[in-house]
This record gives sequence, C-alpha cells and structure tokens, in this order.
Amino acid sequence: MLIGLKPEVASLREHLNTMGISNTTSASRTQQVRGFLQQQNLQAWIAWRPDELLMLCGYFPFWGASLLIYFADAEPILFVPQIEPRDHVPTGLRILDYPWGDLKCPDPYAALVSAVGNELAKAKVRREQVGMGTTAARASLPIQAAEQIPIPEGFSGSLSLVAAEPEARCQAAFANLYSRKTPEEIGAIRLANRVANIGLQVFFDNLQPGKTEAELAAAVESAIYRQIGCDGIFHSRGWAMVQSGPNSADAGRFNRSTGRRLESGDLVLIELATCVNGYWSDLTRTGPVGTPKARVAHILATVRDAQQAAVDAIYPGVSAAHVDGLARERISAQGLGAFFTHHTGHHVGFRYHDPGFLILPGEASLLEPGMVITIEPGVYVPEQGAGARIEDNVLVTDSGREILSRTDGDDGQH
Amino acid sequence: MLIGLKPEVASLREHLNTMGISNTTSASRTQQVRGFLQQQNLQAWIAWRPDELLMLCGYFPFWGASLLIYFADAEPILFVPQIEPRDHVPTGLRILDYPWGDLKCPDPYAALVSAVGNELAKAKVRREQVGMGTTAARASLPIQAAEQIPIPEGFSGSLSLVAAEPEARCQAAFANLYSRKTPEEIGAIRLANRVANIGLQVFFDNLQPGKTEAELAAAVESAIYRQIGCDGIFHSRGWAMVQSGPNSADAGRFNRSTGRRLESGDLVLIELATCVNGYWSDLTRTGPVGTPKARVAHILATVRDAQQAAVDAIYPGVSAAHVDGLARERISAQGLGAFFTHHTGHHVGFRYHDPGFLILPGEASLLEPGMVITIEPGVYVPEQGAGARIEDNVLVTDSGREILSRTDGDDGQH
Repeated sequence: MLIGLKPEVASLREHLNTMGISNTTSASRTQQVRGFLQQQNLQAWIAWRPDELLMLCGYFPFWGASLLIYFADAEPILFVPQIEPRDHVPTGLRILDYPWGDLKCPDPYAALVSAVGNELAKAKVRREQVGMGTTAARASLPIQAAEQIPIPEGFSGSLSLVAAEPEARCQAAFANLYSRKTPEEIGAIRLANRVANIGLQVFFDNLQPGKTEAELAAAVESAIYRQIGCDGIFHSRGWAMVQSGPNSADAGRFNRSTGRRLESGDLVLIELATCVNGYWSDLTRTGPVGTPKARVAHILATVRDAQQAAVDAIYPGVSAAHVDGLARERISAQGLGAFFTHHTGHHVGFRYHDPGFLILPGEASLLEPGMVITIEPGVYVPEQGAGARIEDNVLVTDSGREILSRTDGDDGQH
Repeated sequence: MLIGLKPEVASLREHLNTMGISNTTSASRTQQVRGFLQQQNLQAWIAWRPDELLMLCGYFPFWGASLLIYFADAEPILFVPQIEPRDHVPTGLRILDYPWGDLKCPDPYAALVSAVGNELAKAKVRREQVGMGTTAARASLPIQAAEQIPIPEGFSGSLSLVAAEPEARCQAAFANLYSRKTPEEIGAIRLANRVANIGLQVFFDNLQPGKTEAELAAAVESAIYRQIGCDGIFHSRGWAMVQSGPNSADAGRFNRSTGRRLESGDLVLIELATCVNGYWSDLTRTGPVGTPKARVAHILATVRDAQQAAVDAIYPGVSAAHVDGLARERISAQGLGAFFTHHTGHHVGFRYHDPGFLILPGEASLLEPGMVITIEPGVYVPEQGAGARIEDNVLVTDSGREILSRTDGDDGQH
C-alpha cells in the first residue's frame, strides 16, 4: 500500500477514533492567549477572521461573519449570525446571536458593532484596553467559500470605535501565537493530512496516459469532499491543481490544471490544499507516467533527495536558514540550483499559508516544538519540459520531527 | 433528455462554437466605462478586485493581485505579477510586469503602488482626478482561491496616496455598471450556466437512496472541474451543497453538505455556484427521491409554480417588487407564506452575488435590458422535514426574458 490510509470509511474511522477531534477551546491555547493579553496590558482582544477564530477558540465559522471578544479574565463572547448552523459552534463560550437576513436586517454589521460596544461597556473595558488582529495578508476561507467573506470592507475600520489599533510589537506577538500548535490542533492538522492522502492515492492511481490534468484534479477533490460525514468531519474540501509534462515546468510560478492529456514520460505534479473542519494541509507530490528520459528522472530524484535532507535536518533549535540551505545545497550539487526559485517552506495549519517566518536563505528564526512547517523544494526546468516539487507538513517535536503527511513512514511516494 | 447539454466534450464544443467566447475588452463596455469617467469628471479609475477587473477589461486574474488603471482617454494599463500565467491576460491593454517571489521581492505591493504612482505622474493625472472602486461587500474569488486574495489589508489604504476616495454618488454609478451586461458578457454567463447544467444532470442522475449528500455534491463539482480544456474554458469550478430530507428545511438559512444518506420520500436540494473563466452562475434545483408524501410534494409543487410565475413576469420596465410579489403571492395562497424567508433574487454574473438592488418586497428599481438576475423563491418547513428552492438565472431582453440556465426550454426539472 503506497499510502497508509485507504479511502474506505471504516479505515478512516479507525484512525479518527484515536485522534480525539474536539470542538472546544483547548486549555493550553487558553493559557497561551491569556498570557499574551497580560503581557500586552490588554483587557480584551477582538477577532473575526476565520483563521483567528479557529486559533483562539477552535471555531470554524460558516459565513466568516462571526466575531469573538476574548477577555483577559472573563468568559469569551462569540457573536454568531442567526442564520449560522449551530451544531459546530464550540462549547465553553458565551454565544450571542446577531440578526441576519435581508427581509429582517439589511445591515447586520452595524447591529454587530453596536452589540460589541455594549458588551465591552458592560465589562467596563475601555477602548485603549482592547486590541484587534490585523494579520490578514491572507486569511483562510470560511465553509461557505464561493465568495470572499461577506464582511464589508469598512467593517474593520468601524471596529476601531471600540478597539485600539495595536502597536506592531503587539501584532507580531499575536501572529506568533499561530506558530506554536497545541496537541489538539496538531491532531486536527494530522487529520487534514490523512484526508489529503486519500486524495493523493487517487492521484497516483490515475497517473495514466490520456487522462487530462483537470480530470485528475477533479477526481482528487471529489475523494476529499466525500469524507464529510466520517467521524467528526463536518467540512472537507480540497483544491487540487495538476500540471503535467511541460506544464510542470511552470509549477514554480503558478499551479493550475489544464485540459492537457498525460503522456508517457511526463512528470506530473499535484499541488493540493486540503481544509478539514477548518484546519489545513498543504501538500505537493510529483510522479512519473511510464519511464521518463534520464535527465527528467534526474530532476525528480534530485528533488526527492533534497526534500528528505531538509526534513531530516528538522530539530528544535535549528534555524530556518539551515534547513533551507540543506535543500538548496543538494540541488545545487546536481547543477540545478538556478531552477529552485522559491522558499523551502512556511508555517501551515490555520491557513493554507500561516503567517510567520519562511524557511528561506538568511532566515535566522529557530524551529521550536509545536511548529508545523512545510518542506517543499522544487526544481523547474523549461528546457527539459519538466518540473518537480515534493512537499510534506512536518511537526517539530521535543526530540526531532514527525511527518504529519506520511501515514506509513517512508512510503516511497513522497 | 432532461437537460439540454450532455457531458460529452463534442456536444459542449458545438455549443461553445456559437458563443464567441473572447478575452478582450468589449467595445460596448469600453464606451460605457468612458461615459462613466466623463460624467464623474475623472481622468482615471483604479481597480484590482477580480470582479472589477473582469467587468472593466474582461480579465480574470489568477492570484487576484493584478491592478488596472483605466484612463478616460488613453490605453488602459494592467499591472500583472511576474509569476502570473500569460496565456489568459487580455489583449488591447498595455501590460506592465511587477516583481513577485519571496527570493526576489518580499514586498511586491510597495513596488506596485510606486509603479502606479509613476504611471499616473507620466500621464499628468492628479490624485483628485483618479477614482477607485470600493464595491467589495463581497468580491469574486480569483482562480487560485484556496485562500483570500493575497493583497494585504492596508493595500487599499496605501492606494489613497494616488487615488481619491470617490463620493457615494460616484461609487453608486460605478456599481451600476455591473448591472447592464454586454452581449459578450451575456455569452460568458450563458456558458457558465451550460457548464453548471452538466453538474445538475449528475445531481438528478444520482438521486438514489443510500448516497450521501457529500457524495452527490462531490460528483457534481467533479463534473464541472473536468470541463477545463473544452474550447475556451481555462477555469471551471463549482461549489455544490446538497441538503436532503430534514436538512433541506435548513436551506433558507444556510447551504452545506453532510454525510446524511438519501432516503426514499426525501426532497433533495442542491445549491450550485459555478465559475467559468471568471463568470458566475448561481442555480438551485430540488428533486424528490422516490415519491414523497403529499404534503411534502405540495411544497415542491408550490415553489415550482411560484418560481415560474416570477420568471414569466420579467419584462423590461417591471419593478423588482412586482416580480417578488408574484412569487410571494403564489406561495401565500397555498398557506406557506411564513416559510419563504428570503429575497426572490439578485444580480449575478461577475460574482456569485453581484452588487445592485435585490428582488425584494418594496424594491422600486426597474428591470432593464441587459440585466441578469436570479429568481429563487423557496419554502422551508421544519415540521414537514422538507424544503424546496428553485433558482434560475434570467436575462432581461428588449422584449421579455431569456432563461440562461435552461438549455432546453421548459425541461420539467427547474
């Protein structure tokens, strides 16, 4: 078996039962967030982006229009639109409805800001004592994600009536909370990776001449969506992009699927984002169709070797630059250094790309236990009509690493 | 045949060939936008959200990080990140690269704002003569959409260095440009609906006891993604949400798929967002599994009758409230008025939900030729464990209407 998990529900259920998926604020996260507020001399923190809600209270919103007030020394309040499904709203918080629906309340956001102001006043918290997250260079998508989050552009500005703009130092400390995952969060990210592997098995099973890139990607996404309803999974969605032959040489710039049909001798690359219950996996695999010519096979072998070298170097206390350097050296030693044009990795889990330092040349930040990072070197050679990238999601442990995205140890497909 | 289009490529190709899909700025849109700038005494307009780019120049960005300067009397300039694929960038514009990539340019946005300022200075256009769109209560998603658009939150603010904040009147006029589609745009929205119908056929073919909601939704999305590579289709993605039996009664509040297995006697509702080359279709269908009991069948029959009545009432010059009222009356006459809890429709095409007036009680706005609206009455009765909604996308023509989402006239499935 190439990948440790077969797509049968019974098998997945077995794995899930050992994982303890929960939907409540974890004790370790609560302690961390309260420490942050104390350190910053804040009485409360306001958050509303899906990834921030997930991190602070384990809640993955449906509409992306929920809002959390996290108090330094009182129960958090979660404002939830009236139309939101209630079966995945977390426990351990005070839940307040706010109106929604075009026949009843054409401007729910005004009502929400006013309600937030009232609760802060009741708690005798002044504006200067309230901070607000602005980490969204990107943000994860809510469950209902055919469009951007429906919160209007001016909303963040209107919240400045009740919350102060925190200093850069405070923002950095908040963003830093992302990078150390709790045991519960690691379990959830492990699950996202196991579901992603169900999709990847479909990818490897379909590496046959004549299939289109889009057909492969569609089959992978379908396998991931179908996992909804297995124990504890209320949301499961993949974004798969498959690039074959000459298109794989573009994969260092962009990922997309076209109608190109796979041919014997191709390298085929899949970039796969998977979101399960709000937690993300970010994986890449590259496989051959038939037997590629020697110079193309050499690209894949070089990437495989470099990726494993970088993974093996992950220990607490090692620098990001060191890990990056190992991958880069291996690729340069094979004369392919000019074709590795991007970072070696990034944080992952609350988003497809979490904020925080990159695994990049010159990056002095150190890996710490609880961090989950991608390791994804790639080589893209237009003249050979071939590119390869291999990406795993790796947890830094107290004594080394755990590869969350390989279910069967070294399975030969990474 | 229930739906006019079979999923074979040859059949789709035949339809596409008659559609003249193009990827250039249309003459009619150019005339409209220049008229708007003249009317507002503006020399230029800056836009960067995917739906705004699509409307202004027919370009659907990959990253969502492209930016357009539309001049009143000079060739528009489109800034495109260096890593963007070039084969779908439109013609008829001046294209300028801007740097991207974490090894080369860690802050591409600063470089972009500076380049925009330079081009405006070269054109001798002053800040007060430049407007900027702020229509994004929602925005369509770019091609690469596992995350929100990667443009940072402060970006819009930093653009205020080069563009003035337009008055509300001007914003309204800009938003109004959305609502009158050009012939080219109508062709592209028709195509999105034809692709969506391929997905809907899969839905109706799979209405069988024992299948899960998620399995149905996954199969529909897969059928839509697979259309990439048919003539002119470089991007095709569906978001399908299936609710069956008691879950269908929630569909007036939210749409999602669960692991519930279909049972004989269920109503099953599918909400389907489809994006093809950047243009959107928004459809809903409801079908029975086997033979539902009489009171449940009555819900579906009532919605079908009300939806058809509202569609039949669409003529240029009729008010939104009138159309809404017809659907609402039919439903009330059957004693189900309290269970129709939302609007009857909205504009559609550049987004899943375009800006502009809703088809709603009391809405005096008049339908005009070129508008594309949804008609989607629904009835959701928790006590019956059943809900139904039927949604079509309807073009207002000079003499009446064209139902863009029915390929075979009255096909009995709407």
